[in-house]
Amino acid sequence: MSKKIRASLMGGTGYAAAELIKRLLTHPHVELVKVGSIDHIGENVGQVHRNFRNRLPYIFENLSAAELSQNTDVIFLALPHGVSFQKAPEFFPHHVKLIDLSGDYRIRDVNIYNKYYHATHSNPENISSFVYGLPELHKEKIKSATRIANPGCFATGVALGVLPLAKAGHLRGKIRVVGATGSSGSGVKPQEGTHHPIRCLNIKSYKMLDHQHQPEMEQTISDAGGKNVSVDFIPVSAPFSRGMLLNIIVDLPEQVTEKEITDLYNGYYKDAPFIRLLEKGALPEAITVAGTNFAEIGMYLKSPQNGTRSFAVSVSLDNLVKGASGQAIQNMNLMFGLEETVGLEDFGSWP
Amino acid sequence: MSKKIRASLMGGTGYAAAELIKRLLTHPHVELVKVGSIDHIGENVGQVHRNFRNRLPYIFENLSAAELSQNTDVIFLALPHGVSFQKAPEFFPHHVKLIDLSGDYRIRDVNIYNKYYHATHSNPENISSFVYGLPELHKEKIKSATRIANPGCFATGVALGVLPLAKAGHLRGKIRVVGATGSSGSGVKPQEGTHHPIRCLNIKSYKMLDHQHQPEMEQTISDAGGKNVSVDFIPVSAPFSRGMLLNIIVDLPEQVTEKEITDLYNGYYKDAPFIRLLEKGALPEAITVAGTNFAEIGMYLKSPQNGTRSFAVSVSLDNLVKGASGQAIQNMNLMFGLEETVGLEDFGSWP
Amino acid sequence: MSKKIRASLMGGTGYAAAELIKRLLTHPHVELVKVGSIDHIGENVGQVHRNFRNRLPYIFENLSAAELSQNTDVIFLALPHGVSFQKAPEFFPHHVKLIDLSGDYRIRDVNIYNKYYHATHSNPENISSFVYGLPELHKEKIKSATRIANPGCFATGVALGVLPLAKAGHLRGKIRVVGATGSSGSGVKPQEGTHHPIRCLNIKSYKMLDHQHQPEMEQTISDAGGKNVSVDFIPVSAPFSRGMLLNIIVDLPEQVTEKEITDLYNGYYKDAPFIRLLEKGALPEAITVAGTNFAEIGMYLKSPQNGTRSFAVSVSLDNLVKGASGQAIQNMNLMFGLEETVGLEDFGSWP
Amino acid sequence: MSKKIRASLMGGTGYAAAELIKRLLTHPHVELVKVGSIDHIGENVGQVHRNFRNRLPYIFENLSAAELSQNTDVIFLALPHGVSFQKAPEFFPHHVKLIDLSGDYRIRDVNIYNKYYHATHSNPENISSFVYGLPELHKEKIKSATRIANPGCFATGVALGVLPLAKAGHLRGKIRVVGATGSSGSGVKPQEGTHHPIRCLNIKSYKMLDHQHQPEMEQTISDAGGKNVSVDFIPVSAPFSRGMLLNIIVDLPEQVTEKEITDLYNGYYKDAPFIRLLEKGALPEAITVAGTNFAEIGMYLKSPQNGTRSFAVSVSLDNLVKGASGQAIQNMNLMFGLEETVGLEDFGSWP
Repeated sequence: MSKKIRASLMGGTGYAAAELIKRLLTHPHVELVKVGSIDHIGENVGQVHRNFRNRLPYIFENLSAAELSQNTDVIFLALPHGVSFQKAPEFFPHHVKLIDLSGDYRIRDVNIYNKYYHATHSNPENISSFVYGLPELHKEKIKSATRIANPGCFATGVALGVLPLAKAGHLRGKIRVVGATGSSGSGVKPQEGTHHPIRCLNIKSYKMLDHQHQPEMEQTISDAGGKNVSVDFIPVSAPFSRGMLLNIIVDLPEQVTEKEITDLYNGYYKDAPFIRLLEKGALPEAITVAGTNFAEIGMYLKSPQNGTRSFAVSVSLDNLVKGASGQAIQNMNLMFGLEETVGLEDFGSWP
Repeated sequence: MSKKIRASLMGGTGYAAAELIKRLLTHPHVELVKVGSIDHIGENVGQVHRNFRNRLPYIFENLSAAELSQNTDVIFLALPHGVSFQKAPEFFPHHVKLIDLSGDYRIRDVNIYNKYYHATHSNPENISSFVYGLPELHKEKIKSATRIANPGCFATGVALGVLPLAKAGHLRGKIRVVGATGSSGSGVKPQEGTHHPIRCLNIKSYKMLDHQHQPEMEQTISDAGGKNVSVDFIPVSAPFSRGMLLNIIVDLPEQVTEKEITDLYNGYYKDAPFIRLLEKGALPEAITVAGTNFAEIGMYLKSPQNGTRSFAVSVSLDNLVKGASGQAIQNMNLMFGLEETVGLEDFGSWP
Repeated sequence: MSKKIRASLMGGTGYAAAELIKRLLTHPHVELVKVGSIDHIGENVGQVHRNFRNRLPYIFENLSAAELSQNTDVIFLALPHGVSFQKAPEFFPHHVKLIDLSGDYRIRDVNIYNKYYHATHSNPENISSFVYGLPELHKEKIKSATRIANPGCFATGVALGVLPLAKAGHLRGKIRVVGATGSSGSGVKPQEGTHHPIRCLNIKSYKMLDHQHQPEMEQTISDAGGKNVSVDFIPVSAPFSRGMLLNIIVDLPEQVTEKEITDLYNGYYKDAPFIRLLEKGALPEAITVAGTNFAEIGMYLKSPQNGTRSFAVSVSLDNLVKGASGQAIQNMNLMFGLEETVGLEDFGSWP
Repeated sequence: MSKKIRASLMGGTGYAAAELIKRLLTHPHVELVKVGSIDHIGENVGQVHRNFRNRLPYIFENLSAAELSQNTDVIFLALPHGVSFQKAPEFFPHHVKLIDLSGDYRIRDVNIYNKYYHATHSNPENISSFVYGLPELHKEKIKSATRIANPGCFATGVALGVLPLAKAGHLRGKIRVVGATGSSGSGVKPQEGTHHPIRCLNIKSYKMLDHQHQPEMEQTISDAGGKNVSVDFIPVSAPFSRGMLLNIIVDLPEQVTEKEITDLYNGYYKDAPFIRLLEKGALPEAITVAGTNFAEIGMYLKSPQNGTRSFAVSVSLDNLVKGASGQAIQNMNLMFGLEETVGLEDFGSWP
C-alpha cells in the first residue's frame, strides 16, 4: 500500500475505543485522523485512556458526521446501542466506509432487535446495507462491503465455536451456552455491578436466557447452515478485567466420530489466521488470548447416550479485541484489500 | 443437649479442615478433641490456618484411628480421595460416627467410582453403609445414619438446582451444567493452576464432560426421581477464592407454567433452612452466600420452542461451607438429633 | 448482664454499617432496635447488604434523632464526615450514648479539622465531649464516656504500631508511614477509583502527605507521649476488598536494643486482647485478620547507622472491623461495663 | 541498520524471559536465534509461555555457552541469582555481549553481595567488568559496554525516584521506601506466597529492611551524588500480577522550593524517553505503565517542619519491562548504537 487509510472514530471514550485507537496508531497502513466524542471534549485522549498519558497529540472533539468524514476513508462508530442507529445515517451521504461496533445493524429482523434492545430502531430500512462482520463466516462479503456491523463479543465466541458444525449440517434444535465475561465488558461507567469491593469476590449470572446476543447467535448459526436452531444463553459476570470464556453444549448425531469433528474444524478454519484449534486434551484460557485478536477453541465429544453424542466446545477470546476492536480492524483490512492480519499480530503478554 | 458432642478430625491441614475446625470450635454443642494429620505434625493449627494464629491450643497430631476414636463421638475424615477408603475402615471397629468429606463413599457403583477417580477402591463392600449426606434429599436417612458420605461441592449445587424437578418427574434425558469455582476448591497445595500471576487474570474450563462429580450428580438426580438422566458437566476455574456458581439448563415439557415451577420449588424447599429461593428477576451470587451454609437459587423459564420449554436454574454456594464443611456440620447436627441449623447461622460479611 | 443493651444506627447503608449490623445482631448482650437511613428508605436491610438477603426483619427507616433515641441505649452514627457534626447534636438532649464513626469529633483542634476535611465544623464546642475511642490508649476514659469518636482506620493502625514507643519516650520528630487499603475503604458508592476493570489491575498512591488521618495520627501519638512528632503519611489504593497494611519507619536512639523493644511491646499490650504481636521473623498479613477485630504487629530493628537505628513496624487490620465497626463494638462493650471482647471473638475464615 | 542484531537467551522459562522473547521477536532490528534452558527441554516456547501457543518455531534447548555464542551477537542471561555468576564466565571467551538480568554483577562490593544474597560469589574479579545498566544514570557507559548488569526492579524504581535529588546534592542520610510488587515478581514456580486462594485476598510485607535491593539502591544513589545515604526499604506483596509502586520519603533542606524540585526533575529527565513526570496533583499508577517500558513519577513537597521539608515521591513501573526485560532491551539498543526506544514504544492496553 502506498497511501495510508485515513481512519476516524465517533465515540472515543469507551474501552473499545481505547483498543481501537491503540491498534489504529500502531497499524502500518493507517493514519488516525480524528477522535470524535460527546464527552471529555477538549481533553487529551491520554487523560481518559491513561495508558496513553502524555504520549498522544489527539484530543476528544465534538464533531459532526460531515466534519468527521472530511479527509477520512473509514469511520468507526464506537457508540452505545440505540445511538448508532441515530448517528450512522448522518454518514451515509458522505463517501466513507462505516464500521459500527454497536448492535444496531446486526440483526436483520428489526422486531427482534426492538424486543431485545428495548428500543425502537429508527433506521430499519438500512439494516440490510450492513454486512455482518464475522470474517470467519462472511469474508468475501466483507471484502466488498462499505458498511459493517461488527459482531458482539459473546456472539463472536459462540459462532466461532460451532460454525463448522453448522456448515456440516450437524446443528439443529437447542444449543446451550454459558459465557463468562470480565468486567471490561460493562464499559467505562462505574456502576454497582462493577464496584470493586463486591465484584472482586463475586460471580453471578445475569439476563439468563434473555441476553440480546441470543438472537444474534441464532441468526449467525442459521446463516452458516444451522437448522431450526435456538440458543439458550446464560451470561456470567466474573471477577477479572479482560477476556471471556464460552462453553457450548450441543447434541450431535450418534454416529459422528471424533475424527470427523476434528476434520470438520481443521477444514473450516484452515485459512482463518486468528483461530487457534487446540490439540486434544488442551482447553482454551482467557489469559492466552488476552490482548490479541486470537480465539482459542477446545472440544470434547462424549460417548453416545440416549441416541446422541453430547459435544462440548469451549472458546476463549478477548472481548475488546476479537470481541470488538480487533475484529473491527480485521474487517477494515479486508474492506481495503489488505492482509487480514495486518496490525493484529502482536503477542499479548505473559503473564 | 446437656452433654457436648466430642468431635475429632483426621486430615487437618486442608481448607475444608480449616472451615470444619472453625465451625466445630464455635458450635455451642460440640467439643473439638483432636486434630489428626499426617503433615505439619507438632505445629500449632494456627501456623497453617493463619486465621487462627496465636489463638488455639490445638496441634496437628499423627494419630491412629484407635487413638482418634478415644473420647470421641464423631470423626470427620477430611482426607483426599483415594486415602479415605484406606483409612475409613480402620474406624469401623470403634464406636464413632463417621463423616467422610472425600468422594470415596458417595458413588454406589464401584466401577463408576474406579473409572472417574482413576483408582481401585479397596473397600467397595462398605460403600452402601454410608448415607449420602444431602439433607435436602435424605434428611430422614441421615438422622439415623452412623456413616455419612458428604457430597461434593459441584454435585451439591446441581442437586439443589434440580431436585424439585426430579421429584416432580420433570427431569429426563440430558442436563447441561456449567459450574465455575473459586481457587480454594483446588486445595492448599500450590500448583500451576493456582499460581497467582496467571490465575488472577484467567478463566478456563477443565475436565470437560469428564469430571468425577458428573456420575455423582446423575446418581443423586436419579435417586430423587429423574428418569434416564445424563449430566453433561463443564467445570470452570475462575479467579476468585471462595464460592461457586452452577448454571443448569434442561428441557421441560411444553405445558409447564412458571407458576407450577415456582410452586414446586417453594414446596420442595419449604423446610430447608439453608435454601434461599430468589424472587423472579433476582439471580444468585457467590458473595451473598460466601462464608455461610446457604445456597441461593434463581431461575428462568423460556417460552416454548420446538415442543419444549428451556429452563435455566442458577445456584450459588460456598464450596467450603455448603459444598463441604458446613454441610458436614449440618449432617452431624441431624445425626445427633440437633436442629439442622445449629452452628451454621452466621451471616457472612459485606463486602 | 440481665438486660440487653438496646442499640440503633443512624446511617445504615454503608459498609461500616453492614459490619455493625452483623455484629450487633450476633452480640449476646445487644438488641438491635432500629436502622435509620436517608436512602433506601423502606427497603429491607438485606436488599442492600445482600449477605443478609431474606434473613432479617429490619428495614431502613428515615427517623429523627428523637425517634431513634426512644427505647435505645446507644446510637451508632455511621454517617459521612461533615454530616455527623450536623446530626450528632440532635441526639445530645436525649439520654443515649453516642458512638460516632466519622472523623468529625476526633480532632480537638477545629482549625486542623476544617483544613484537612475541607469543611467548617458547626459544632466545635462539643468536640471535647467526645472521647477518642482507641481502647489500647484510652481504656479507662472510654469506660466512663457517654460519647465516643471512633478512630479512623489508618490512624488506628499507625497508633497501634507505635504506641509503646511513644509511651516510652522514644518517638520524636518524623514518622514515615505508607499504608495500603482495600477498596472497601472507599465506600459503597461506585466511582472511578473503584471501577473494577481498572482497580483489579492497579495500585496507586493518593493524597500523598495530605490525608486527613495524618493530624489524627499526630494527635494520638502525642497523647501517648510522642515529642514534637510529625507524621508523613502516604495512603495507597490496592486491589483487594478488605483489610489494610501499615508500614511505619522511625528513627530510634542508637543504644536501643531489640530486647528492649520487644519488652516494651509485650508490656504495653499485655492486656490488649486484640493485639497479636508476632514472633521475630513473622510479619502481619491482611488475610489473617480479615473479618476479625485483631491487629497484627511485626517489627524489625536495623543495625545502627548514622547515630540512630531505623525501626520498621508493620501492622495489619481489617479496615471495617478493628478499623471501624469492630472497634465501635469494643468501645460499646467498655462503655457498658462488658468484657471488651464480647461479640468480637469470631475467627475469620481461611482462606 | 542493515544487519540484524542476533540475540539469544540463556534461561528461557521465567517470566522475564517471556517478556524478553516477545520484545526480541517484535524488535525491528533483532533476530532471535536460540532459547537456551535447563528445563522444559525440547518443548515449544509456546507450551510454557502460553501467550505464544502455536505461534512460534522456537524450542527450549539445553545449550552450552559455546553453542549459544555461535552466530549470536548478544546473550541475555535470564538466570536466577547464584546461577549467573557460574554461567556468565563461560561466555567471556566468546565474542558476544552479555546482558545479565540477575543480581550477580550489580553490587561492586562482593562482601555485601554475599551477605544479602546468602551466597559466595565465585567470580568477584569480573564484577567490575559489568556496567550497571540504568540508562537514566549511566547512558554513556552503557553505550560502550560489552557486559551489562541489568538493574533490579525495586532498585530501578527507587533510583528513578531520587536521581535528580542525588545529583543536586540534596540527598543525604536516610531514605525511607515502601515498595509494593505484583505476584509476577515471584517468578514462575508456584509456592505458598503466590497460591491464589490466599494471595488474591492478601497484602503483606516481607524481608523488612533486609531486602537484597537495599544495598543496590544505596550504591546507585551514591553513584549519582547521594552523600552517606542509607536506604530503609520495606517490600510488600500485593494481590495483582504485573507492576510495582514505590513510595519514597526523604528530608530535604528547609529552603528548597517546589519550583526548584520541579526544575531539577524536568532538567534531569529531559532526554529520558521512558520517564513520565506527572503534573502537580497527579500520581503514578501501576496500570498506566503496565506492559510498557515507562516509569511514572509524581511528587509532593510538604511545608517545612522541624527544620526540614518532607518530600515524597511515588514511582510506578512494570516489574517485567522497565524493571527487567524492557530495560535489558533499552540497554541492548544503546550498546548497539540504536535509538534507545526501538522496540519499546508500544502503548500497553486500557484497561
